[in-house]
Amino acid sequence: MNPALIQVACCQLAPQVGELKYNRERALQAIRSAAGQGAQVVVLPELVQSGYVFADRNEALSLAETPNGETLRQWAALAAELDIVIVGGFCERTERDELYNSAALVDADGVRAVYRKAHLWNDEKRIFSAGGQPPPVIDTRFGRIAVMICYDLEFPEWVRLPALAGAELLCAPVNWPDGPRPLGERPAEVVRVQANASVNRLYIAACDRNGHEREVDWVGGSVIVDANGYPLAGPLHEAPAGTQIIHARLDLSEARDKRISALNDVHRDRQPVLYD
Amino acid sequence: MNPALIQVACCQLAPQVGELKYNRERALQAIRSAAGQGAQVVVLPELVQSGYVFADRNEALSLAETPNGETLRQWAALAAELDIVIVGGFCERTERDELYNSAALVDADGVRAVYRKAHLWNDEKRIFSAGGQPPPVIDTRFGRIAVMICYDLEFPEWVRLPALAGAELLCAPVNWPDGPRPLGERPAEVVRVQANASVNRLYIAACDRNGHEREVDWVGGSVIVDANGYPLAGPLHEAPAGTQIIHARLDLSEARDKRISALNDVHRDRQPVLYD
Repeated sequence: MNPALIQVACCQLAPQVGELKYNRERALQAIRSAAGQGAQVVVLPELVQSGYVFADRNEALSLAETPNGETLRQWAALAAELDIVIVGGFCERTERDELYNSAALVDADGVRAVYRKAHLWNDEKRIFSAGGQPPPVIDTRFGRIAVMICYDLEFPEWVRLPALAGAELLCAPVNWPDGPRPLGERPAEVVRVQANASVNRLYIAACDRNGHEREVDWVGGSVIVDANGYPLAGPLHEAPAGTQIIHARLDLSEARDKRISALNDVHRDRQPVLYD
Repeated sequence: MNPALIQVACCQLAPQVGELKYNRERALQAIRSAAGQGAQVVVLPELVQSGYVFADRNEALSLAETPNGETLRQWAALAAELDIVIVGGFCERTERDELYNSAALVDADGVRAVYRKAHLWNDEKRIFSAGGQPPPVIDTRFGRIAVMICYDLEFPEWVRLPALAGAELLCAPVNWPDGPRPLGERPAEVVRVQANASVNRLYIAACDRNGHEREVDWVGGSVIVDANGYPLAGPLHEAPAGTQIIHARLDLSEARDKRISALNDVHRDRQPVLYD
């Protein structure tokens, strides 16, 4: 197949919970910086607009926006100006004041998709409703791109859906809370991204956050993984403050070819009748 | 929960295709050696009885055995003598001369299960029939143990089945053909084992082979992974000739507890209605 090269960036940064203006400005600066270095697809962390560690549901509600809100309007304007795709997380409020942990895919045509996290992590269950729709797969100028969020990645069944629907690149805003692991081991969060990529021959760009927020630290493990499951960029071994941007060039034709031997194809070799 | 400690070993060795007597002897020596060092569950490679790289189906047929054959009789006798569990691969022939790439679980009570590989790798498709039954989950003196084989591990749906059925330890005979990977990267085969373990909070012992057989080299990546997805033993970075045995002590109560935060459980958090 002909190569289909694109450049992808993850902008690992530290939003501050409650500081909408600061967070929006940080994200805009990071997007401009990534695009200035050639990125055509720019991924931002989960809940980058609001911060993550809410005191309670009321605080989240006070920070939430609709897809017509200021944050996504800014991303749409910047995507049009720079002719890029932006994928990032935001705290979504519906007209009935339901809350979702959502991520938007935005390009020069505006907001192309809003995905609502289906697998909620810990206290998110006290704050958000769970999404009930599969990850979107959007045809963009830079390939077929799917979106999901953080803990969703721990359910290989969930990654299968957009992979089988033809996604070439999965962009995943994440906030990975840090925890103990054996010395020298790559974080299990990154390992799971690698495995998801390899069993589907799909590129995955997971954009984590950094910084310290209300007693929580983060892995800071942003990573862009190729269709064989090996990192092309990241994970960073330390997560200093300040914005860190990782870039990788992907050949999306690799993700269109699911063969891994003369007689094997990672999707056609599935035996769905045996899985129920 | 009370700890439930067991000791598991993987015996990475080099069978020679066609040399049944040599292969059987090698396996028996390795099992004795592992048990002598305290192993209660001993895992052997895929097709350890026959070797792997068959010239054609006729060669495989000439080497195949039934579950009543010499190899499994030897394993059963040794399991009874040493009071251990043995899991290993063999080339299985049925009375109608069908061939399966199979693995047996044998303990002091004899052959407890024969599993037939459901996902066939490359030329195996020209030789073997594909198994149509899910991985067995067997109550043994040393915990609830499941069995699958090599390429099966690349289908997270397949690992889910025994995990949801209560398996605490998955024993997987494998023959991982070696291939290129970026310098310093752990083989993707091992990475997938780690991810399978962590998304199910299940121990996995994958026993690879080594040696060189008819132009094929092997990863030699035997590994025993804990319920968080981190290796307890292996993978070895080199695969010299000769038998290499890795050991780990597992607390199976870890695998009975699927919680990963105050409000999260890796199995209960699944949303099966959304996966179809």
